[in-house]
Amino acid sequence: MKKAVLLFESVDCPGIVASIASFISEKKGNIVQADQHSTDSGTFFIRVEFSYEPQLCTIDDLVLGFRVVADEFSANFKIHDYDQKKKMGILVSKFDHCLVDIIYRWKKGELGVDIPFVISNHDDLRGLVESYNIHFYHFPVTKKTKQAQEDKIMALVDEESDFLVLARYMQILSDDLLRKYKRNIINIHHSFLPSFKGADPYRQAYDRGVKIIGATAHYVSADLDEGPIIEQIVSRVSHRDSVDSLKRIGWRLEQDALSVAIKKEVENRIIRYKNKTIVFN
Amino acid sequence: MKKAVLLFESVDCPGIVASIASFISEKKGNIVQADQHSTDSGTFFIRVEFSYEPQLCTIDDLVLGFRVVADEFSANFKIHDYDQKKKMGILVSKFDHCLVDIIYRWKKGELGVDIPFVISNHDDLRGLVESYNIHFYHFPVTKKTKQAQEDKIMALVDEESDFLVLARYMQILSDDLLRKYKRNIINIHHSFLPSFKGADPYRQAYDRGVKIIGATAHYVSADLDEGPIIEQIVSRVSHRDSVDSLKRIGWRLEQDALSVAIKKEVENRIIRYKNKTIVFN
Amino acid sequence: MKKAVLLFESVDCPGIVASIASFISEKKGNIVQADQHSTDSGTFFIRVEFSYEPQLCTIDDLVLGFRVVADEFSANFKIHDYDQKKKMGILVSKFDHCLVDIIYRWKKGELGVDIPFVISNHDDLRGLVESYNIHFYHFPVTKKTKQAQEDKIMALVDEESDFLVLARYMQILSDDLLRKYKRNIINIHHSFLPSFKGADPYRQAYDRGVKIIGATAHYVSADLDEGPIIEQIVSRVSHRDSVDSLKRIGWRLEQDALSVAIKKEVENRIIRYKNKTIVFN
Amino acid sequence: MKKAVLLFESVDCPGIVASIASFISEKKGNIVQADQHSTDSGTFFIRVEFSYEPQLCTIDDLVLGFRVVADEFSANFKIHDYDQKKKMGILVSKFDHCLVDIIYRWKKGELGVDIPFVISNHDDLRGLVESYNIHFYHFPVTKKTKQAQEDKIMALVDEESDFLVLARYMQILSDDLLRKYKRNIINIHHSFLPSFKGADPYRQAYDRGVKIIGATAHYVSADLDEGPIIEQIVSRVSHRDSVDSLKRIGWRLEQDALSVAIKKEVENRIIRYKNKTIVFN
Repeated sequence: MKKAVLLFESVDCPGIVASIASFISEKKGNIVQADQHSTDSGTFFIRVEFSYEPQLCTIDDLVLGFRVVADEFSANFKIHDYDQKKKMGILVSKFDHCLVDIIYRWKKGELGVDIPFVISNHDDLRGLVESYNIHFYHFPVTKKTKQAQEDKIMALVDEESDFLVLARYMQILSDDLLRKYKRNIINIHHSFLPSFKGADPYRQAYDRGVKIIGATAHYVSADLDEGPIIEQIVSRVSHRDSVDSLKRIGWRLEQDALSVAIKKEVENRIIRYKNKTIVFN
Repeated sequence: MKKAVLLFESVDCPGIVASIASFISEKKGNIVQADQHSTDSGTFFIRVEFSYEPQLCTIDDLVLGFRVVADEFSANFKIHDYDQKKKMGILVSKFDHCLVDIIYRWKKGELGVDIPFVISNHDDLRGLVESYNIHFYHFPVTKKTKQAQEDKIMALVDEESDFLVLARYMQILSDDLLRKYKRNIINIHHSFLPSFKGADPYRQAYDRGVKIIGATAHYVSADLDEGPIIEQIVSRVSHRDSVDSLKRIGWRLEQDALSVAIKKEVENRIIRYKNKTIVFN
Repeated sequence: MKKAVLLFESVDCPGIVASIASFISEKKGNIVQADQHSTDSGTFFIRVEFSYEPQLCTIDDLVLGFRVVADEFSANFKIHDYDQKKKMGILVSKFDHCLVDIIYRWKKGELGVDIPFVISNHDDLRGLVESYNIHFYHFPVTKKTKQAQEDKIMALVDEESDFLVLARYMQILSDDLLRKYKRNIINIHHSFLPSFKGADPYRQAYDRGVKIIGATAHYVSADLDEGPIIEQIVSRVSHRDSVDSLKRIGWRLEQDALSVAIKKEVENRIIRYKNKTIVFN
Repeated sequence: MKKAVLLFESVDCPGIVASIASFISEKKGNIVQADQHSTDSGTFFIRVEFSYEPQLCTIDDLVLGFRVVADEFSANFKIHDYDQKKKMGILVSKFDHCLVDIIYRWKKGELGVDIPFVISNHDDLRGLVESYNIHFYHFPVTKKTKQAQEDKIMALVDEESDFLVLARYMQILSDDLLRKYKRNIINIHHSFLPSFKGADPYRQAYDRGVKIIGATAHYVSADLDEGPIIEQIVSRVSHRDSVDSLKRIGWRLEQDALSVAIKKEVENRIIRYKNKTIVFN
C-alpha cells in the first residue's frame, strides 16, 4: 500500500465528498485522514489523505481517473504522491539558527523531505552544510551583480527544487525571480506580522515596548512581508529585555514557526486562498 | 435547511466515508464539516456535520435510513438534531466563578444550550441563578441524608437533563447515581490532572512547588478524578505565588477549561474511547 | 503596621538603594518587596513596597523626610499609601464583557480599588451597574454635543477619580480632555498592537489571515492606539475562525489584559518611560 | 569594573536591605539588579547583583567584609564572582537533542559557562562532542559494574565540575554518589511533574489521554523525580498524537526547560528552599 494526498477546490455544493470518497473506494483506496473547509464566499476546499494499492492503480491512473470527478464540479485538484519526497531548496545568509534547526530535524527524519542544496550570499555556513553532505553554493551579491546572482539562483532552483525556504536570507528576491519561479517560497520573518515589517524588527519591537514578540512563517509574494501567513509563534517579554535578549528569545520562535511551516508544506496541508492560508491538521 | 451531526464508530475498513457521504448526498444533504480518527488498534471514528432538507427527510428518516449503512459496517452511530437544544443541568456548591461564566456565555448565546435548573447543596447562589429565571434547587446534604439527597437529584436530572455539569460541586456523586444516570457528566477539577487529584489541589501544587498550574475538564467516572480528560488549560506561576494567588489564577483556568468542554459536548464533538476522548475540531 | 509604596526615578549612580533602604530602616519600616530597573540611557527606577508604623511616622512624615534623600540624587519620587484605595472611574459604551469582568473581580476583592461611577454614552448597562450600587451616568453624545458631553465627563472625573479605565468605550477622547485630565487613562484595544489600530480590528485580523490574535491594554495618549503598552494577551486562531468567532475568542483576551493592567495600576507597579512602560512584578 | 552576585538568607527582619546596600555602597559598588523573597514562615532571601572595583576591593575582601554584616542577622550567604565561568559537567546517554541544544547555545555564548567534559554510558555521541573540542568519556555500565562506573564518574566530576547536568542520562545515580557530590545536579524529566514520574512518561501521558504535555527541569535528590522543580514548559497535544509524535513535540520542551534551568543556575538565580526553588528574574 502507498499513500497519496488529494487537494481539491471548487464551488461548494452537495455531493462533493460523496463523489470523492466513492472514487477512492472504487479504486480500493482507504481514506486515512480528511479535512475540509468552506469559505464565506462559497468556495469549498478539501484535503484527503488516502492509501491505495499501486499494483492496481498508479498515481497517474488516479489523476487520470479523478479528472472525470473533478470536471463534474469544475474543480481544481492535485494528487500528490506521499512517498515521493519533495526537494526543498534553502537560501540563507549568515545567521545559522534556522538552518541548524532544519538540518537537525531533517537528519532525524522529521521533515520527510530532501535537501538538494543550500544557497548563500556568504560563505560562512559552508562547513556546516557540507558536513551533512549537502551541496553548498556561495553566490555573493552586490547591487551591481544582483541580476547575475539571481540568474544563477534561478538556474539552480528551477531544476532542483519543489519549493524554497528562505531561512533568514537577508536579500530581497526580485519580482522577476518570483514571477519565474512558479512554486512556493516560504520565508521566516522575525516579527509578529503585520507588526514590524521590514528591517530590524526586534529593534522596532523594543522601541514600541510590546510585551509579546513573535515570528511569522509566510509565503513570499511580490509585496514584502505581505504574503499569506502560514504560522506564527510568540513569547512573552518585558521591560527587562534589551534588543539583544529579544533576538535571543526570537531565534527559537523563528525556528519553531519555520519548521511547522515546512512540515505543513511537505505534507501538502496548506492551501493558499486570496492572501490567506488554509492550514489543515 | 436544518443541520444534523452524525457520530459513527466501527472497525476501520475501506469505503466507510464513501458510504456515509453517498447516503447524505442521496438525501440531498450537504456535508458542512467532517473529521475522522483511526486509533492504533483499528477503530474508526467520524463526526459528520451536514445540512438536510427537513421537508424531504426528517431526522427520524435519516436515522432509519442510515441504519442500513451502519449495519454494513457493524457500526455504532448516533444522529443528533443540531437545532434541538440540549438540556444542561448544573450542580454547584458555594464557589460561583464557574457558574457565573457559564451563565454569562449562555446569556450571550455562545453555548447553544438550555439550562433547565441549577442544583446546589447550599443556598448561597440562589439569587444569582433566579435573577436569570433559571430554577434553583437547594438540596442540602449531610452524611446521613446523602442517599435521600441523591434520590432527589436523580429524580430531577433524569427527567430534565441531557447531560450534567459539576461547576465546582464539592460533593462526590455515589457510584449508584453514576450507574443510574446514563448520560454524560462533566466535572471541572482544579488541577492539571493526573497531578493533584483529590482535595485542595492548589495547596498540593503550592507544596510541590510546580511552575505551572492547570485545570482539567473531564467526564466523571466511578474512579474519582480518573475519568476521560476533555480539556486542560494551564498558566505559569512562580515562587511568589501563595496558595491564595494560585486560586486567583486558577479560577480563570477552571472557567476556560469548563466552557470549552461544554461547547464541545453541546456540539457533539467528543467521543469517549477507552478512558480517553477524541475531541473533534 | 501599614504599607506604602515608593516609586523613585533618577540618574543611575552608586548608593541609591543604600540611601533608600537606610531611610526606611531608620523609620523602623521593613522592605516587603523591591524591584528596580536601569535603562540603557542610564535612568534608574525603583519600586519599594514597605511596611511602616503609622504611630511613629505618618505617610506625610515619610514624604517630607524622604525629600531630603531624593534631593541628594535629584530624583522624582512618590510615596503611595497602600491602604488608601484608589478611585477608578470607568467609561463604557454597549459591550459589557470588560465591565462585567471588572465588576466581578472588584466584588471578589481582587482589585483593591473603589469604583465611584460608570459613565456611558448609552443607557444599556445601567441595570448591571446599578445592581452593584455603583453610580451610572448616561451622557449621550453626537457630533454636535461632543464638547458638552466631554465637559460633563470632565466635571465628574476630575473630582471623583484617581484614574480612568476605558472598558470598550467606543468614543475618542479629545486632546483637550486628555490635556486637562492629568491622571492615567487605561484603554483596552482589541488587537495585538501595533497591528490593527483603529476601527474593527477583528475584521482587520481576519482579512490579514493572522494565526494569533491579541488584546492590548495601554495608556491613552494623544495619538490613537499609540500610547505606552501595559499588557498584551494572545490566543491561537485558524482559518476556521470567522470574524464572529474571533470576537468570541477576543473578548476573553480583552478582559484578561485589562484586568492585569488595572491591578498593576492599582498597586503602583507601572512606570511610564518614554512611550513605554516598566511593569514591576 | 567587575560584577558579583550575593545570595543571602536569614530570618526576616527590618534593616537587612539597608545593611546590604550600605555595605556595597561603602565598597564603591553599584547594585545592578536585586530581587528578594520572604516566605510564609518568615525566611528572607535576597539576590543582589552588583558591580565593584576590583582594584579597590577583591572578591575575597568582599566576602571577608560582608561576613560582619551577615553575622548581624545570623545569615547564610555566598558571593559569586560573575566573571568566573562555572564548569558544567554533562552526563548523557543516547538521545542527543538536549546535548545538541546545550552545545549550540554554549557555542553562541548564551550560557556563560565552560563545559569541561561530557560523560556517557554509550559511545554514540563521541563524534558530536569531540567536534567541539570537548572531552568525551565513555563509561559503560552494567548492573555488575555500576559501582565501578560511578567511581570513575565521581573521580572526574569532583575535580572538574561546579555542577552537573543530566541531559537525558538514562541511569539513576546512586544515593552514595549524590551524597558525595555536594554540588547541584540538574535533571531534565520528560513529563510535567509530578505527573508521570519514572519510565516512559510519553507513553504514560498517551495512555492517560492528557491534552497538554510538558517537561520539567529539576534538581536531583535522593527520591527519583521528586527534587525541587526549577522550570516547566508545556505544549498542547490532541487525540491525533501518537506516542511518537508526543516524543517529537516533547524533545523541544525538554531542550527549552533545560536551557532555562542551566542559565538560571549559571547566573546564581536559584535558591533551594525546602523541596522547592526560588527562581529570581
